[in-house]
Amino acid sequence: MQFLSDNAAPVHPRVWDAMRAADAPDTPYDTDALSRELDARFTALFGRECAALTVATGTAANCLALATMVQPHGGVICHREAHIEMDECGAPGFYLHGAKLLLAEGEGAKLTPDGVGKVLAGITRGVHQVPAHAISITQASEYGLVYDAGELAAIRSIASEHGLGFHMDGARFANACAYLGGSATDAAGEIDALSFGCVKNGGMGAEAVILFDTEKAEMVRYRRKRAGHLQSKGRFLAAQIIAMLEDDIWLENARAANAAAAIVADGAADRLVYPQQINELFVSMDAAERTALREQGFGFYDWDDSCVRLVTHWATDHDDAHKLARAIAAL
Amino acid sequence: MQFLSDNAAPVHPRVWDAMRAADAPDTPYDTDALSRELDARFTALFGRECAALTVATGTAANCLALATMVQPHGGVICHREAHIEMDECGAPGFYLHGAKLLLAEGEGAKLTPDGVGKVLAGITRGVHQVPAHAISITQASEYGLVYDAGELAAIRSIASEHGLGFHMDGARFANACAYLGGSATDAAGEIDALSFGCVKNGGMGAEAVILFDTEKAEMVRYRRKRAGHLQSKGRFLAAQIIAMLEDDIWLENARAANAAAAIVADGAADRLVYPQQINELFVSMDAAERTALREQGFGFYDWDDSCVRLVTHWATDHDDAHKLARAIAAL
Amino acid sequence: MQFLSDNAAPVHPRVWDAMRAADAPDTPYDTDALSRELDARFTALFGRECAALTVATGTAANCLALATMVQPHGGVICHREAHIEMDECGAPGFYLHGAKLLLAEGEGAKLTPDGVGKVLAGITRGVHQVPAHAISITQASEYGLVYDAGELAAIRSIASEHGLGFHMDGARFANACAYLGGSATDAAGEIDALSFGCVKNGGMGAEAVILFDTEKAEMVRYRRKRAGHLQSKGRFLAAQIIAMLEDDIWLENARAANAAAAIVADGAADRLVYPQQINELFVSMDAAERTALREQGFGFYDWDDSCVRLVTHWATDHDDAHKLARAIAAL
Amino acid sequence: MQFLSDNAAPVHPRVWDAMRAADAPDTPYDTDALSRELDARFTALFGRECAALTVATGTAANCLALATMVQPHGGVICHREAHIEMDECGAPGFYLHGAKLLLAEGEGAKLTPDGVGKVLAGITRGVHQVPAHAISITQASEYGLVYDAGELAAIRSIASEHGLGFHMDGARFANACAYLGGSATDAAGEIDALSFGCVKNGGMGAEAVILFDTEKAEMVRYRRKRAGHLQSKGRFLAAQIIAMLEDDIWLENARAANAAAAIVADGAADRLVYPQQINELFVSMDAAERTALREQGFGFYDWDDSCVRLVTHWATDHDDAHKLARAIAAL
Repeated sequence: MQFLSDNAAPVHPRVWDAMRAADAPDTPYDTDALSRELDARFTALFGRECAALTVATGTAANCLALATMVQPHGGVICHREAHIEMDECGAPGFYLHGAKLLLAEGEGAKLTPDGVGKVLAGITRGVHQVPAHAISITQASEYGLVYDAGELAAIRSIASEHGLGFHMDGARFANACAYLGGSATDAAGEIDALSFGCVKNGGMGAEAVILFDTEKAEMVRYRRKRAGHLQSKGRFLAAQIIAMLEDDIWLENARAANAAAAIVADGAADRLVYPQQINELFVSMDAAERTALREQGFGFYDWDDSCVRLVTHWATDHDDAHKLARAIAAL
Repeated sequence: MQFLSDNAAPVHPRVWDAMRAADAPDTPYDTDALSRELDARFTALFGRECAALTVATGTAANCLALATMVQPHGGVICHREAHIEMDECGAPGFYLHGAKLLLAEGEGAKLTPDGVGKVLAGITRGVHQVPAHAISITQASEYGLVYDAGELAAIRSIASEHGLGFHMDGARFANACAYLGGSATDAAGEIDALSFGCVKNGGMGAEAVILFDTEKAEMVRYRRKRAGHLQSKGRFLAAQIIAMLEDDIWLENARAANAAAAIVADGAADRLVYPQQINELFVSMDAAERTALREQGFGFYDWDDSCVRLVTHWATDHDDAHKLARAIAAL
Repeated sequence: MQFLSDNAAPVHPRVWDAMRAADAPDTPYDTDALSRELDARFTALFGRECAALTVATGTAANCLALATMVQPHGGVICHREAHIEMDECGAPGFYLHGAKLLLAEGEGAKLTPDGVGKVLAGITRGVHQVPAHAISITQASEYGLVYDAGELAAIRSIASEHGLGFHMDGARFANACAYLGGSATDAAGEIDALSFGCVKNGGMGAEAVILFDTEKAEMVRYRRKRAGHLQSKGRFLAAQIIAMLEDDIWLENARAANAAAAIVADGAADRLVYPQQINELFVSMDAAERTALREQGFGFYDWDDSCVRLVTHWATDHDDAHKLARAIAAL
Repeated sequence: MQFLSDNAAPVHPRVWDAMRAADAPDTPYDTDALSRELDARFTALFGRECAALTVATGTAANCLALATMVQPHGGVICHREAHIEMDECGAPGFYLHGAKLLLAEGEGAKLTPDGVGKVLAGITRGVHQVPAHAISITQASEYGLVYDAGELAAIRSIASEHGLGFHMDGARFANACAYLGGSATDAAGEIDALSFGCVKNGGMGAEAVILFDTEKAEMVRYRRKRAGHLQSKGRFLAAQIIAMLEDDIWLENARAANAAAAIVADGAADRLVYPQQINELFVSMDAAERTALREQGFGFYDWDDSCVRLVTHWATDHDDAHKLARAIAAL
């Protein structure tokens, strides 16, 4: 019974079907029919014009999106524990040509106007310091917390006030959206670019860069090619994304994952480091308790000395979730 | 009847099967069983120790391989018409941090010791000029020509003499290998790194970086992650590559593609710009003739004013190839 | 009697005086009075608003200027023998983060609309190719040839038509300007940015980046700092530049250098590879002749097997120039 | 009476003399006699073989030195308040192609094995995190504190244990050396590379990169050229450095600056945030007190809300220092 990572989840049957269906002759390098459909699909989803490009990973999506906002001599304000800071091996430094991540504080890995403001207030010495060019948040955050509409608006406001781009790492955007009630528009707020996650949510190897400033799309197309992320058989990536959007499979999957996490959370209520909102739980647990759980067949990630991370996904067996909840409650 | 590109070819059934089989729980980010098998598979194939990493595209494979040899202030000697120079939107400049391609001449887009030597002879002004750090060739070349063992040895020799790395872009390595008789060792020569192509040969979205200097593998693993090319579900990439290597499917596919091209070549013998060796043909043709062929249902790429490019692939119908041969002969 | 390089010339007395005068307490990092004067000085010189920043070298000036026009995924059209291509060790690749030089042909290392047009005509394959973002010319060219007003206007026209930036490497801008009659405006044409040379013309270690798009100045100030080219005692650089502009010393020096070259040219008329316009001569000469000249005490640079380069400068003794002229005539 | 910055200090007469003397014809681009003398000069100074190259700024020196140790995908452990982190506008990100600064804690902006060890202990997740490639310290630190022999040895030890390069930013190396008794060897410890400061100590625009791993010198020469930091009249930079080394002017200047600071410290003993060791003092002072001092004609830098920074230099009038000491004591 694995609660290790949603990256280990299987590929959704509808994704498989769509990929199979895409295995017909078409032209290469995203000139195929499926790839050309993406802009319209996401424009419909978000209710405002956008351009959408596929890439294989969230790291590539984040970095290509940020490249539309951040010059090499600039900086990106993000949380001290953001994925782009902690887990991407310096990818933003590579894609943004040495631009710097400017680290802000905030509870539960969420940025706040106050945290952002403190970073901005520290930039006072002109050319001797890296200027901020963008803000990047993660929806949901690294601790599984969701920005609501008001919180997004507040960050949009500070971004606009300072002329900063506003990017959202949406590796688990679907889960955040499901938590907020299912409106992609609400979950996105007025961001300028989104990394729309698919792999953790039942996809195989496709994410989408969504650009609400569509004039930037051409630049990103060049940058994507230059980064080796334009696949000659890109139709198989577009197929994954479109399959997820059809019949709201992406939301259905996210709801299933969130629900499984809620089941587990019920058994761990007094141990939760953060309230459960999506498919990630951070649960206080000592070494002996971890061993006890593992001996019962549960797999999970040791986040740090004080807590473990439990992740559910679209295919998590709810019975397994109940078993885990009971096992934790019984510790 | 498409002869446009081997990138438009369908995915081989054995590849599909292997991907399906890979859709079982495993750990993410190339810690899975399939990904861990790659080094041994390629070590067996080439008869010398090597490390193998998957990426989604040949551009990424080429650039990551070159990064093991070329410092940011250095240069890569390649043919004036090499793919890395002509078709990758400056990706080497991105991955190598501004390193320069140093362009050499050579018949049929093949490098020769003489062509390489002329580039080296022109580097005489110390720090004012970019020094050469590596040689990169394409096997088979952009015009479908294959380096034989003697030619590879000659370039190896000049590389060693000048302390240069030696990289091979093997987007169509399988076709070259099939042409040379099927020995991967012969087709690779004593290169330091190979971009092993799979996508054009029946794969979906996986290529392999092969490093014969295995001490460089760790660096490439970091660089790959940093470039957003480490896929969390990398097992699906490894599955594609392994499926191709099993039962020599990769060679079987390449032989089929080459054979289809040979059929076409028979009908176009007096029009061939270069001798047919692999699955690409460059055929002299004027505008009226092109129109005539297209009206008969044949698709292909206008290379330039003087010739068209015809590409076959593993699934090309040999009857279609005969039809095209006859149609060309009848022009 | 050295005709090797204007880089070997002494520093002009007025420059020395100005540097000495600058050795009074002032605030660091270009907040001093002299540095703050530069914008107005060059705005007056060119008769249109511009921003001016000092750097130590022409390479830095060229690259910082180009960075205002060229994105990392773009290209700079320049002559195949331009200094930025031949002699700067890949500096544009470094400063422009992998952007590519797109090489054009043209007599005497001068670009023409035709040469530029051929490069542009070859960019047809969308994201697979590096797009042009700027044109860079050298005034005077690497072979000492000057663009006149009509030639500059023609290149301006093609740049505007294709939305390209227009940069001028003016390492010997003073000499070109002197040749054209002394109007900086005429010699610059409607470029967007200029690297204004001073070192070869009697300076010590200061050049100026001139930005006619003044909105780009802030970005260049950051990029300059980031490149380690903002000197804490920048007042000594500003002092050099201002000294040159005062009383048109820069033109006086250039005229003296050009005149010395004209003297030499008189003795070498039938050997000139290009007509003498500024302070550089390219003179056909065989090995025996070179030896003969050197035995008479003349120093110069072996350009290639067919010709030598002779360079005069502001302090070249005109008697020495006559001696050289006679010596060449007597060969 | 300025105590704002040693960057505002005048140029030492011996430096002027040496620059004047360098204004004789010689070959360009550091092929001149003075530049070629540098390696031997510093080898003598440090008692072990080294290579020395001039650049115009400390930022360039730091970054070129670090480039010998740090790959683009690596990181540099430095103090959270190090100059390379706080004041160079992201220059390390530019020169190191996106490499990351890994921030350590330590009293008075000095690194300790413990602080370094904590950074290293946090790097546990393989390719998902930037690996450390080097340690960089500042001698003396940003708060004017000096590493003694034991402290240097301890950091050398942890660097060696983890295979890290060891760089020293020596913008005020002279002051540290003077404080330690005058032995350059003691003040440098067993570092791999040093940025040897000259500008703050009576120079005009020259610093030296000192490489104790002399095999790296060739690479740095290329990188320097590529960064636009190879000056054609580099002889004027070498002249500055050599003038400072002759008769130990560099130490004499540093001793004078340190002594002036000691005078001021005497009057501010109970306000010192850190003990005075070199020519920088951090003095607790409220707004009213700052105003009072300024009204008496003293200039200085507001470090933060709690303290001001007072900097002396080689030419600081010791009477002025006494006046400042008395004025502070009288507050």
